[in-house]
Amino acid sequence: MNKGEAMDAARGLFGERFSINSAVRESHAHGEANPAWSAPDAVVFPETTEEVSKLLTLCHVGHIPVTAFGAGTSLEGHVTPVAGGITVDLTRMNRILGVNAADLDARIEAGVTRRQLNLFLRDHGLFFPVDPGSDCTIGGMCATRASGTNTVRYGTIRENVLGLRVVLADGTIVDTGGRVRKSATGYDLTHLMIGSEGTLGIITEIQLRLHGIPELIGSAVCSFVELRGAIETVIGVMQAGIPVARIEFADSAQMAASIAYSKLEGFIPQPTLLFEFHGTEGSVAEQMMMAKEVAMEHGAADFFFATEAEARSKLWRARHDAYWAARATCPGFGALTTDTIVPISCLAEAIEQAHAAVQRSGLRATIVGHVGDGNFHVLILFPDTVQGAQRAWALDREIVTQALELGGAVSGEHGVGIGKREFLLREHGADALKMMRTIKSALDPRGIMNPGKVFLD
Amino acid sequence: MNKGEAMDAARGLFGERFSINSAVRESHAHGEANPAWSAPDAVVFPETTEEVSKLLTLCHVGHIPVTAFGAGTSLEGHVTPVAGGITVDLTRMNRILGVNAADLDARIEAGVTRRQLNLFLRDHGLFFPVDPGSDCTIGGMCATRASGTNTVRYGTIRENVLGLRVVLADGTIVDTGGRVRKSATGYDLTHLMIGSEGTLGIITEIQLRLHGIPELIGSAVCSFVELRGAIETVIGVMQAGIPVARIEFADSAQMAASIAYSKLEGFIPQPTLLFEFHGTEGSVAEQMMMAKEVAMEHGAADFFFATEAEARSKLWRARHDAYWAARATCPGFGALTTDTIVPISCLAEAIEQAHAAVQRSGLRATIVGHVGDGNFHVLILFPDTVQGAQRAWALDREIVTQALELGGAVSGEHGVGIGKREFLLREHGADALKMMRTIKSALDPRGIMNPGKVFLD
Repeated sequence: MNKGEAMDAARGLFGERFSINSAVRESHAHGEANPAWSAPDAVVFPETTEEVSKLLTLCHVGHIPVTAFGAGTSLEGHVTPVAGGITVDLTRMNRILGVNAADLDARIEAGVTRRQLNLFLRDHGLFFPVDPGSDCTIGGMCATRASGTNTVRYGTIRENVLGLRVVLADGTIVDTGGRVRKSATGYDLTHLMIGSEGTLGIITEIQLRLHGIPELIGSAVCSFVELRGAIETVIGVMQAGIPVARIEFADSAQMAASIAYSKLEGFIPQPTLLFEFHGTEGSVAEQMMMAKEVAMEHGAADFFFATEAEARSKLWRARHDAYWAARATCPGFGALTTDTIVPISCLAEAIEQAHAAVQRSGLRATIVGHVGDGNFHVLILFPDTVQGAQRAWALDREIVTQALELGGAVSGEHGVGIGKREFLLREHGADALKMMRTIKSALDPRGIMNPGKVFLD
Repeated sequence: MNKGEAMDAARGLFGERFSINSAVRESHAHGEANPAWSAPDAVVFPETTEEVSKLLTLCHVGHIPVTAFGAGTSLEGHVTPVAGGITVDLTRMNRILGVNAADLDARIEAGVTRRQLNLFLRDHGLFFPVDPGSDCTIGGMCATRASGTNTVRYGTIRENVLGLRVVLADGTIVDTGGRVRKSATGYDLTHLMIGSEGTLGIITEIQLRLHGIPELIGSAVCSFVELRGAIETVIGVMQAGIPVARIEFADSAQMAASIAYSKLEGFIPQPTLLFEFHGTEGSVAEQMMMAKEVAMEHGAADFFFATEAEARSKLWRARHDAYWAARATCPGFGALTTDTIVPISCLAEAIEQAHAAVQRSGLRATIVGHVGDGNFHVLILFPDTVQGAQRAWALDREIVTQALELGGAVSGEHGVGIGKREFLLREHGADALKMMRTIKSALDPRGIMNPGKVFLD
């Protein structure tokens, strides 16, 4: 069967759910942020794992490139089908297959989104903690090894997935992991698939860990004259074992932008930490007092608590709107978000270096960070021209290089996609990269799974 | 270069650290518990990763089987070199290369043992939480995906390793992961190696996560007339989000044995839960009160607290001595420990089924469990004869089958080795097993790495 015959067979299989409509193809030509654009030859909307399996069998036989697509929130071009072929839109596979409160777990299809799941779980008194901000599909979060603001307490997607159902390049359906909390048998296929960005197979079902909704959630904010005071506070909080649920940083420029955009009253545009505490009334109060003590030791100018839902949600809405607040300072400008991560002991230096690089570039930028993990984002604003974008990319590259020199990584949560391929060699070394390629070739010998991603050709 | 020439070259490379002494070879012929016995042709004691690399290059060229060996505490025959060849004893690679308190991490060589590390860390106010009981090497713990009593709070070895240095079958040295808390770039080679039981490469260095020693540690014990009350208490504690550090179970038979062996006063031989709480004085007190409330709701007969170090350590020593306490009830008998794990919602049923299987077998056994994870061990005592051992293995097999039928796994922490290969197909399915074999063949095409383990031939 040649490529054309395989395409015809796929069309026969999916009927109206096989689309070559140009609007449908164009809406699957890119994610967010990364400018790469390339429409697939067709978009298919499977409803079951078996359908994905039949499709991949055809693509394998016909040497047709396959790109998985969820909510399209990718920031590094993961979903851009650079070699054309078929894009597999998984959003119709959005069933919540089961929730087991006694085991604190759930089974879902890959197209379920984060908000959909948490809305469903609320009545069970449970929640799924991994929160990258956008309303991505959980399949996409697995594929890119996503994380977010809650990671410091609950871990990344990696720590919250117990097992997967995956369709490999030749259509084989594999169940990895299982329902148990841990297993010491066999290779860890679950974690091999998590973060493989659609290059080893397509994730269709996920067995998730859940958590009980805490009795009380408290927030706190404190600002510092010096960046170093903020970072030393983070280190002190982690060393003291205070089980903070979130610990987020914003620099002076971001605070100025957020104060204006989110109408925050009583805040000053200085390096600021925003905490969230989960627990009982007693433990939240204790965590807050301990965090305050550490912050004061490191020169915090103030320390505000907020346990009322309204005040808290205003603060966290401001945090979630940081991107839009920054953009509002330069209307009409483009924006690019870096995603480096360093060991926490190097975080102050990394942020200072990033500030210096921003200054040298002549561009404007703000910085926010999931500082409990050492992960920070520089929101670069640039004149919306080809030359402006090039300056922004050059600044991103410089910040990545700085992070690597400090023993850090290229991306804490956005992934490699197209945009960060050039740095993979530097972060992992030639031999690790060769080992990854060996695995890729063994599992996808025809190279049909999301070609042009992760590895430079 | 043929096999003999490669052996000669290895001897030349290691000099006195290449041993064919029969006592040395015999001491590397087996681990603990699993009866498999097969001496290697030679034992080599490398002192650096580069030496391991040179050795594996020779073994690759000469098609010589290679088995890694740490403290020899394996329970499933992992270290038995069934095909002969060279055993690589890593105990000389026992340097602690660096501890970074600000980042809560450490870098160590694979031969460092758990106790050695924690003794070293104590002065830094830090500890490494994964505690399988025995004083195994941390390299061995990585290779077998070990865990233990602290897993419910701190995770298994999987959640506490940030990166590895690994020597692949052809001698290539690969660094996986890194110093950062998370990275979203590249395949997760770290977790592919963890649990691969020496069949994909040899781990020589490990980047570990550490934790601050808690301000206070508290223990509690409560007993139940009915097993189900104990298990429902565990589920209730987990759902309430009480961050217990340990939650261990012992059945009536084990309690009777431990009361006699460890001279525990004031305890009754009933299904019993043993808790440990980590935190500040306030949070430990709160956790204890909350746990007590849950236990009382589910019919606990009593609930004792112990925060004094002496009382606590007596309790936990009794828990660690459970194996010896059980053996002391049948002097001269052999012992075999099962290691199944089930979803917690099935745990009461799994333990009841195991009790019934023990009764049918006519053998004696006690049960202990890391019940926060759903993992439990049946300590089977059998007459020390070939027939007795066969009856014990048959009982183990029955308990494994019961766990698999309840959606569980063959092993929670002991691994596959030789002993549990026959069940891998049943736990993971033919397609997942094929995927594992594909990876194995790609990374070790000559099959020299720990042959005869994990997969049935």
